[in-house]
Amino acid sequence: MGAHKKGANNGSYLYDPLLLQGLDWPSARNLMSPNITNMEPGEEWLCVRPLQIGDYNKGYLSLLSQLTTVGHVSQHDFERQYWAMQRAGGYYVTVIEDTRSQTIIGSATLVTELKFIHSASIRGRLEDVVVNNTYRGKQLGKLIVLTVTLLAKKLGCYKMSLDCKDNLIAFYKSIGYKIEAGNSNSMIIRYETTPS
Amino acid sequence: MGAHKKGANNGSYLYDPLLLQGLDWPSARNLMSPNITNMEPGEEWLCVRPLQIGDYNKGYLSLLSQLTTVGHVSQHDFERQYWAMQRAGGYYVTVIEDTRSQTIIGSATLVTELKFIHSASIRGRLEDVVVNNTYRGKQLGKLIVLTVTLLAKKLGCYKMSLDCKDNLIAFYKSIGYKIEAGNSNSMIIRYETTPS
Repeated sequence: MGAHKKGANNGSYLYDPLLLQGLDWPSARNLMSPNITNMEPGEEWLCVRPLQIGDYNKGYLSLLSQLTTVGHVSQHDFERQYWAMQRAGGYYVTVIEDTRSQTIIGSATLVTELKFIHSASIRGRLEDVVVNNTYRGKQLGKLIVLTVTLLAKKLGCYKMSLDCKDNLIAFYKSIGYKIEAGNSNSMIIRYETTPS
Repeated sequence: MGAHKKGANNGSYLYDPLLLQGLDWPSARNLMSPNITNMEPGEEWLCVRPLQIGDYNKGYLSLLSQLTTVGHVSQHDFERQYWAMQRAGGYYVTVIEDTRSQTIIGSATLVTELKFIHSASIRGRLEDVVVNNTYRGKQLGKLIVLTVTLLAKKLGCYKMSLDCKDNLIAFYKSIGYKIEAGNSNSMIIRYETTPS
């Protein structure tokens, strides 16, 4: 695991960290300045890697709570879901760790979906993007989103999609996502769930 | 398998057909007229059930080609993807068969995604909705979409979402889906894939 030798990466990963090597960063060359990548994230104390089961104790859920409702998730709940994701496959939860404080400070998830259409291939979805807001100005939002976006390309997805709020459209446009005219609506039904 | 005794259902299913029993149709009572359900789809020769591996020979891919590009998918490709979906779990491909001609004439897929947020629960997505256009006027579009939507509710999803074109917004609104103000954008990147 030569590429992940920063000390923060002992233990197993949700997915094979070798997949994060050799991403097509040249295709994203004009999207960031300076040109950081997941392998060279701009600060030596930053590490981009797959989620690990120990990240429960590195503030991963606290980070997610900056994004949306997390609710009560015990260590047991977290580990159960981690193993369920690993068993199912297709869950590429990717994090940025500040190895100085051993804290997860950014995360984005690629979820792949098996399809019969498009020659029985796969598509990708971007989910649950969050960067600790005390780490602004380091392009870490772009970095983590582009990392999983390029991973989707590497895995052979025929497309990658995301749903977002109006105020994030400009951000995602700046890194290559498009609104397709007449075909860009996201609709939902929310169910009442019993509080846990 | 008393509920699926119509002869078309020999062989195994992509997911447990018992899950389609006892869906909360009373909550959808005002959405259709007359009130058909997956158990009583309005014609005795219609059968709503999980995808089966034999559906390759019942025109399933031909139906999907009314929706989008299917490309060349051999029986081997189809079966490989079928087993991969079953192994992964979370793929609820649901079809309507015309048992007179043993042809698949409608389909909708619920895909569930494991989450750490929302108390480590699951969300649902509606995918690949299509009804053979020679079967119009039977509410089969509503029927198949509501079937997998109610299945998402039964499985405990905290929300169900879909992406759609402008001209389908009214249809999905008519069965309970909503556009959330300021939070209803779908964006994508398409990748060039090598033709198979």
